[in-house]
Amino acid sequence: MTDTSHARPLPEYLIRRYHGWKATSYEENKGWYKRLADEGQRPRAMVISCCDSRVHVTSIFGADQGEFFIHRNIANLVPPYEPDGKQHGTSAAVEYAVTALKVAHLIVLGHSSCGGVQGCYEMCEGRAPELEETSSFVGRWMDILRPQHGGLPEGDDPTRLRALEKRAILASIDNLMTFPFVASAVENGSLTLHGAWNDISTGALEVWDPADREFLPV
Amino acid sequence: MTDTSHARPLPEYLIRRYHGWKATSYEENKGWYKRLADEGQRPRAMVISCCDSRVHVTSIFGADQGEFFIHRNIANLVPPYEPDGKQHGTSAAVEYAVTALKVAHLIVLGHSSCGGVQGCYEMCEGRAPELEETSSFVGRWMDILRPQHGGLPEGDDPTRLRALEKRAILASIDNLMTFPFVASAVENGSLTLHGAWNDISTGALEVWDPADREFLPV
Amino acid sequence: MTDTSHARPLPEYLIRRYHGWKATSYEENKGWYKRLADEGQRPRAMVISCCDSRVHVTSIFGADQGEFFIHRNIANLVPPYEPDGKQHGTSAAVEYAVTALKVAHLIVLGHSSCGGVQGCYEMCEGRAPELEETSSFVGRWMDILRPQHGGLPEGDDPTRLRALEKRAILASIDNLMTFPFVASAVENGSLTLHGAWNDISTGALEVWDPADREFLPV
Amino acid sequence: MTDTSHARPLPEYLIRRYHGWKATSYEENKGWYKRLADEGQRPRAMVISCCDSRVHVTSIFGADQGEFFIHRNIANLVPPYEPDGKQHGTSAAVEYAVTALKVAHLIVLGHSSCGGVQGCYEMCEGRAPELEETSSFVGRWMDILRPQHGGLPEGDDPTRLRALEKRAILASIDNLMTFPFVASAVENGSLTLHGAWNDISTGALEVWDPADREFLPV
Repeated sequence: MTDTSHARPLPEYLIRRYHGWKATSYEENKGWYKRLADEGQRPRAMVISCCDSRVHVTSIFGADQGEFFIHRNIANLVPPYEPDGKQHGTSAAVEYAVTALKVAHLIVLGHSSCGGVQGCYEMCEGRAPELEETSSFVGRWMDILRPQHGGLPEGDDPTRLRALEKRAILASIDNLMTFPFVASAVENGSLTLHGAWNDISTGALEVWDPADREFLPV
Repeated sequence: MTDTSHARPLPEYLIRRYHGWKATSYEENKGWYKRLADEGQRPRAMVISCCDSRVHVTSIFGADQGEFFIHRNIANLVPPYEPDGKQHGTSAAVEYAVTALKVAHLIVLGHSSCGGVQGCYEMCEGRAPELEETSSFVGRWMDILRPQHGGLPEGDDPTRLRALEKRAILASIDNLMTFPFVASAVENGSLTLHGAWNDISTGALEVWDPADREFLPV
Repeated sequence: MTDTSHARPLPEYLIRRYHGWKATSYEENKGWYKRLADEGQRPRAMVISCCDSRVHVTSIFGADQGEFFIHRNIANLVPPYEPDGKQHGTSAAVEYAVTALKVAHLIVLGHSSCGGVQGCYEMCEGRAPELEETSSFVGRWMDILRPQHGGLPEGDDPTRLRALEKRAILASIDNLMTFPFVASAVENGSLTLHGAWNDISTGALEVWDPADREFLPV
Repeated sequence: MTDTSHARPLPEYLIRRYHGWKATSYEENKGWYKRLADEGQRPRAMVISCCDSRVHVTSIFGADQGEFFIHRNIANLVPPYEPDGKQHGTSAAVEYAVTALKVAHLIVLGHSSCGGVQGCYEMCEGRAPELEETSSFVGRWMDILRPQHGGLPEGDDPTRLRALEKRAILASIDNLMTFPFVASAVENGSLTLHGAWNDISTGALEVWDPADREFLPV
């Protein structure tokens, strides 16, 4: 039995805002929300993005309820396929989106000034020993990105950091292809993979171009 | 080096919507976005919610860029503290939010018609052998919730399912308290935990009341 | 040394309400309030509104502690830039918000039935000689708005009064642009200016539309 | 004629929240708001507080539309009575509240971590030459508080800063008594003055006790 004596009521300002949403957005769309509840969701795309508060997936893409199945973790990473019976939250989300919901697009959305990528960079440069510890969840999670540090171009830290942010996207796409159900969906044409990177400051969006093999502004 | 020959350009409809966002929302708020990029995020709260496309965390709470650090996984689950050096994406997100960003609130937001919770329920009722397989990422992820099935009240399936959805929230809050940095932040008053459940169909929001030990509509 | 023998204890009803706030809102949000105290405020917007008791800036915009830097004076007026070494409370507030806090938005919020604007109107129509006196602080303060009276459209008093309320907002925005630090922040895109008018009776909100050159309901 | 080509539409998130307020708080109270519009405001108290985003006057005192006439400026200062025909925004607000609205209470509400008071302190200690410049609106505004620096107790900076925050409240009350209309209203018993100080971090409220001649927690 759970012991949740530590849970507290929501802050009032959020309750007030919720009531505002309920009386407007919900009220105006309740027919659609009821259908979504009765018939289940049928999202067209899955988006994997960072938890960062500055990334607003639905705003950027003008998406409303029912459109995107969204998984958000630190640094928008996908680990390689590893069916070892342990708990893999990201893999579970991908599996559910591709095999149960059969989404048509899977978008990995990275962003500038990513604290997780920066942590990985500092760790790989030997400047963040605390992230090397076994007990560091962030450090161990960023191990997924670690192999990408070796191939970074020469340059100053900001340049290399940005390059690593973009490699986080590409590495995730590569890792996605190691999942048999992803690879087969891509191969039979029912799923397409996409990599995009958002500059928080300028609002720019760059998308991976497989022909030119670089990220290009849209 | 990565091999991302499978990545494709974004669907045109998303690029069009992005350009619309850039010319309007971004343009009206660029001073704020630039500051968020320059000075870093300082979100007041972390929200852990489901990936489900019908859950719109920011809409429900009228939140804009910079307000919420959002982790989304299947069924808004938090596993227990397990610093074994393996990859724990949810634990990494919680660690980053609490120790680096020092969020003041951590809200676990569940919802009705949760496919992940339903999968767990079917599995525990013996009706989903495929989820029992070692290779099922969803099944293994939902093992986090499994212990809650035992204590469900008698009743029909919908009643028990809804109860399990709410137990997923409470179990996550309990598991959060097994993380030393969460427990100490709660104990010293710098962090409060909150559990809430949203009914997709009716738009209702229920919040866990620690005094009455039940979810009550706000 | 000050002589404050005239100060009195707070009315009991306010003390009771304060204790209620302390035991509820404060208690639920103390982690956030402590962070705001330790790390300083970082408000996204400054709002300049009237002192009128019927204008509730934070309620209308669902804002909580830390979101808005709020200056309130009679009739939400901003005087022109005048760095003469005298005391200019409004100019000081604008200077602090723009140069020290670097707010991203500056919203001038006017309202219906504004007593200050009405006083200015009566004064300009020759019906309030007491406001013309040198010793009238309200009269001299409303001199800021006086130049706008000349260009009012023909019509009955209520129509012209409402027009003058809206001109108070626009004149303040124009005056804001005479402050070099405001103009340069607007020009480099780090600050945007906004004009809005709230109808106390109907609750309507109208926002200045620079394209149509009029206030339009949102 | 005004030229407001620089004004921009409001950010979307504020418009959404406004619509939420309109559909809930406004709708539930429209009878009262309509009366407030038709019959005019009749606030019981005037509050003079700081613009600081962390000070929520209405929350702390559980006040709703129509209760408080609120003037907010940097550091909640009131200048001395100076009827020189120039623009004095604070004096105009006090004059309107006391002579036109006839408020029964006038509360000067200070707070901890006040940036304006800190600026004054640094200036008086010779550590902020930029605030001494004629063109510094904040510096000239804080000149109102300057005379209080001389009598500060010995001690470290934080202790002296806190003392100066409280003297800002007392000096304002003293200055209020230099206004003939305030002094006569106090003397005939129709107005009482109050000084209070809020600790942002702990939520504590201290009120000036004229008997003990110190600020005491309520």
